[in-house]
Amino acid sequence: MHERITLSDIAEQAGVSTATVSRVLNGKSNVAEVTRRQVLAALDVLGYERPETLHRASKGLVGLVVPELSNPIFPLYAQEIEQLLASGGHTPLLCTQTPGGTSEDEYVEMLVDRGVAGIVFVSGRHSDTGGDVTRYQRLRERGVPLVTINGNAPTIKAPGFTTDDRAAARMAVDHLLSLGHRRIGLAMGPGRMVPAQRKRAGYEDAVSTALPDEPLRIVETLYTYEGGASAARQLLEHGCTGIVCSSDIMALGVISGARAAGLVVPDDLSVIGYDDSPLIPMTDPPLTTVRQPVEAICRAAVTTLLASIGGEQPDDTEMLFTPDLIVRGSTAPAQ
Amino acid sequence: MHERITLSDIAEQAGVSTATVSRVLNGKSNVAEVTRRQVLAALDVLGYERPETLHRASKGLVGLVVPELSNPIFPLYAQEIEQLLASGGHTPLLCTQTPGGTSEDEYVEMLVDRGVAGIVFVSGRHSDTGGDVTRYQRLRERGVPLVTINGNAPTIKAPGFTTDDRAAARMAVDHLLSLGHRRIGLAMGPGRMVPAQRKRAGYEDAVSTALPDEPLRIVETLYTYEGGASAARQLLEHGCTGIVCSSDIMALGVISGARAAGLVVPDDLSVIGYDDSPLIPMTDPPLTTVRQPVEAICRAAVTTLLASIGGEQPDDTEMLFTPDLIVRGSTAPAQ
Repeated sequence: MHERITLSDIAEQAGVSTATVSRVLNGKSNVAEVTRRQVLAALDVLGYERPETLHRASKGLVGLVVPELSNPIFPLYAQEIEQLLASGGHTPLLCTQTPGGTSEDEYVEMLVDRGVAGIVFVSGRHSDTGGDVTRYQRLRERGVPLVTINGNAPTIKAPGFTTDDRAAARMAVDHLLSLGHRRIGLAMGPGRMVPAQRKRAGYEDAVSTALPDEPLRIVETLYTYEGGASAARQLLEHGCTGIVCSSDIMALGVISGARAAGLVVPDDLSVIGYDDSPLIPMTDPPLTTVRQPVEAICRAAVTTLLASIGGEQPDDTEMLFTPDLIVRGSTAPAQ
Repeated sequence: MHERITLSDIAEQAGVSTATVSRVLNGKSNVAEVTRRQVLAALDVLGYERPETLHRASKGLVGLVVPELSNPIFPLYAQEIEQLLASGGHTPLLCTQTPGGTSEDEYVEMLVDRGVAGIVFVSGRHSDTGGDVTRYQRLRERGVPLVTINGNAPTIKAPGFTTDDRAAARMAVDHLLSLGHRRIGLAMGPGRMVPAQRKRAGYEDAVSTALPDEPLRIVETLYTYEGGASAARQLLEHGCTGIVCSSDIMALGVISGARAAGLVVPDDLSVIGYDDSPLIPMTDPPLTTVRQPVEAICRAAVTTLLASIGGEQPDDTEMLFTPDLIVRGSTAPAQ
């Protein structure tokens, strides 16, 4: 039952001829760059080491600042952005924060000191309305191109690429309304954060339009599993039969909080997450969620950053990307 | 239902008095470093920006090279190591690879060019018996301290810290034996990799000792969901009622492969993963798995690296860490 990997396996994986694989492995110059990269990728996927002759000069470092890695949406963004940067010939440097560890500002200083060509910020301080925005301004003054992902505060001057949080919350509420729910709650992140504010606005719009007599049921908490469990307790006291959450991890916490209260999801309580990532369809029950269009956002952000690095003047506007409602097993008709 | 965060919230989160929080925020020097870090961590957890006066000089960069981020065990290792490095005053730089992107060698060159104080390799080429080991030797000759995590090849001279893969496979087989299974399969990663070889040895030991008349049922495949699904098809043809997998992602692929064949897990087929990470207990069914002792491994690896950076001569031996069998819902008595 063993398999040995051959030249033709590499060719098949790369979708090219064995002659092409052999040309690439021997470092011949008569191969298109895109083909060369396909063969390198095939070697990597199959777990093979690249011949030393295939090393190439990098076009420069690009910093990628993400808040943490425990929420699986951040590794997903990081992996996607790194792939795009690397296929453009840049070397991505991933800076992730841990509580009490290196802060965003310290990473930015370090990146600038090391002559980084540009920086991508994912869910950074740019989305904090209470945050200090001068750091982004200083970067621009020092000529360091930057782009942000997810929720620019109104004062930030930088090209932003973000999931439409308002639409996301509206979609989630509309789905619960269509299932007959009337007491719908929102478990949101800290109210200083732009994405949280926008989700709140979308929730308020949708609920007050459809059910003008129902009170708004909102709990502001941390973006964590424990935050979700705690929000569930409060929202259940307010009679909710459906809860919209600001992240999948919070939604899993809400489900655990509901179970601790003796409820069954989705029979007694419908729960909707936000983000989506590869393991989420495999949860019990499979989580209904609003999926961030990660690939489209990263592609637009990286394209803009690379154009900026190439000398183009970017537009300091925020581009909104529409998410998708993914209906799985954690939502059901109201009883 | 709103919550405003106050000085006393920070104090409570940090487990210190409000007076201490205030001393730290005002940059007073009469605070122990460990207390200062607790307050910083509390600010970070609560999502607050640190005052600029709290920035500090880094003791230097430490590179952290991981193969990828889609398997959730790698973000878990990365987060743990970063936390330990940062609390020791170092700035971690995370280098992750993507197919066709920047390779391990390219990252190492870049890190050395930028004067990195040391490098931690997680599941890198050091575990590939077909890999080129001179890169590690060259690093040592250039005076760059390094440590490796998970499966040093016999030729590698570096302090290694690794889960005991042989014990892991033995534990998994023993659990299936105790449930009455006799036709037990192994879905393993590429045979060139040291952890895969060791798991194979543990599986062979356990099966041939307990069931000398049963054939070994082994499929070598990629460390992916699709690899697992494909291994399931082959192992089911060989009549397996229990399958031991080399990663949780492979195990989830095995479950999907079994479902595609019309089987129910665990009623018709028991499946055991390997790794464990925060979302794994929430899969359907909750995955029985062998948990890597991530925290203990990272603590030993970082302590050794920091001692090396401090001038101590490290021992080039490999330290094995015993994993834990975590029994959940994907294994059941043989029918």
